Amino acid sequence: MPSIKAAILGFGTVGEGIYRILKEKREQIQEQTGYSIDIVAILVKDASKKRLATPGVVITDDIRDIWSGPSIDVVFEAIVGEEPAYTYLSEAIEKGTHIITANKKMFAKHGPALVKHAEFRGVQVGFEATTAGGVPIIRTVSNLIKGDRVRRVQGILNGTSNYILTKMREDHLPFQQVLQQAQALGYAEADPTDDVSGGDAFRKLMILSSLAFDRQPDWDHVPVVGVDHIELSHVQEASNNNLRYRHVADVWLDEKGVLQATVGPVLVGADHPLHSIDGVNNAVIVNTEYLGQLTLVGPGAGMYPTGSAMVSDLLHILGQPSKVLVNQ
Amino acid sequence: MPSIKAAILGFGTVGEGIYRILKEKREQIQEQTGYSIDIVAILVKDASKKRLATPGVVITDDIRDIWSGPSIDVVFEAIVGEEPAYTYLSEAIEKGTHIITANKKMFAKHGPALVKHAEFRGVQVGFEATTAGGVPIIRTVSNLIKGDRVRRVQGILNGTSNYILTKMREDHLPFQQVLQQAQALGYAEADPTDDVSGGDAFRKLMILSSLAFDRQPDWDHVPVVGVDHIELSHVQEASNNNLRYRHVADVWLDEKGVLQATVGPVLVGADHPLHSIDGVNNAVIVNTEYLGQLTLVGPGAGMYPTGSAMVSDLLHILGQPSKVLVNQ
Repeated sequence: MPSIKAAILGFGTVGEGIYRILKEKREQIQEQTGYSIDIVAILVKDASKKRLATPGVVITDDIRDIWSGPSIDVVFEAIVGEEPAYTYLSEAIEKGTHIITANKKMFAKHGPALVKHAEFRGVQVGFEATTAGGVPIIRTVSNLIKGDRVRRVQGILNGTSNYILTKMREDHLPFQQVLQQAQALGYAEADPTDDVSGGDAFRKLMILSSLAFDRQPDWDHVPVVGVDHIELSHVQEASNNNLRYRHVADVWLDEKGVLQATVGPVLVGADHPLHSIDGVNNAVIVNTEYLGQLTLVGPGAGMYPTGSAMVSDLLHILGQPSKVLVNQ
Repeated sequence: MPSIKAAILGFGTVGEGIYRILKEKREQIQEQTGYSIDIVAILVKDASKKRLATPGVVITDDIRDIWSGPSIDVVFEAIVGEEPAYTYLSEAIEKGTHIITANKKMFAKHGPALVKHAEFRGVQVGFEATTAGGVPIIRTVSNLIKGDRVRRVQGILNGTSNYILTKMREDHLPFQQVLQQAQALGYAEADPTDDVSGGDAFRKLMILSSLAFDRQPDWDHVPVVGVDHIELSHVQEASNNNLRYRHVADVWLDEKGVLQATVGPVLVGADHPLHSIDGVNNAVIVNTEYLGQLTLVGPGAGMYPTGSAMVSDLLHILGQPSKVLVNQ
């Protein structure tokens, strides 16, 4: 059976999720795809740290150990931040390696360049996990743009913000108190700025914009407002009027064909598809010419949802008439 | 540019939708896939009937005219009922032709045999349009079963039933009166039995069961109850308790690994993902081992949503390392 040699760059929650899924589902994937997927190397930040046992796998904190080893067919990248992730993935593509990333910060900015580079080198780029975690929005939009035309993509793209808005409404607690609870529960980062300011949702929206419209609006011209601007009295007043605040990232083509985008709190009524989306869930609404309106709802983060999105990217690549298949 | 020769079997609403989309999006599809899609023949019930002009296309009421013409790469089947659709599609597969169907009645029963036959002949079967119209539930579940495990699939699979329940609640009208309105608006058939009795939702559920679990429960052991059993007083009492009736088709693996299924009205509260799904929409909830819970909501029927689901099937087939691609 042909073997696919994979490396995992970054071994936090997401990286470990990929490792676990590929191990647990090894035989099922062999049966479904005809390939044996072998994790041969893992790049970590601190090679001396105690972690999940990964027998037979090279553990290193130096990317050169991975590039100098046996040829890698695919890298899973789950590092946080633009660099060194972008450099590593550029190197991987240059070596003819497929890349699969969960790194939204890097991909919002460098995704278009990576995709172009990958096309030139004849390899593929999986980025399902960059946006809305386990919700297969990237695959769905990728399919829709082929024979249909996307007009608008909007959604709840930040689980932390949605959790905070949900708890403010349900428990009648002010923003700061809910945020502290969320941090204690692991639903918010120690530094939650990027989530509660809308920056994280904005970058995911830019990834969706590149995919759906093949371009992004000028970043400086997109109004971005976070949930940190919402007070408990606003939430309560909304509730009294049967409305709910949702933090919505929205990109659409206006009547003149100009790409518009906004990110911020929106009041929605009971009949709005985002009204019932509570907690850490994500939801994306896509409007197209033929299909009409499609809504996808699911977990926006987590070890297994995000890891499974990346494994799904790999299975998709293996199903394509690509280099990997031709060489075996 | 390589040409894909296609035939449409059945030229009602759905068949016409396929024709229109392939014509309107001809250049976009060429650019995206590298293929020119050419409709060369259309099978109709009555060749003398006046219909949409389709220049350059053979219009016939005799399938032999299609099989004896130039070799067809793919057939789109949008006939109603088991026969002659099953026979035609079996013949197509035998000739090495990919098949794409919207025929839920035929596919619930004969789908497993067609898929097996197609595997043997090295061709592909698209059936996205058989279930939940434009909602890409077949593609999504197909992806999920590869590296994950589906535990439960449930949903609103019949738009007519959901429209009726919605209108009974909103307009305080009894079942019969809403049904007549739905018929006048084209949301219900002249003979609505199959929709309102739950039979249509049952068959779509069986298609999902084959896909998600590779088997169907014994049809005779699945309880099927339609919306025709719901009285206005029930709907009103539910509303008074902040509950709504939804007609839910449900298939799951129980704790012993036995496949269970039910089809019938279910009362759901405001936090249930099906609570807000009103009108002719369909919705499907999938529970898996890794991803958790995913919900998809969209149009369950219609010329363009259903036609676009079938065109999407074709684009998927063209993206596979299959016979078509190898031969060109």
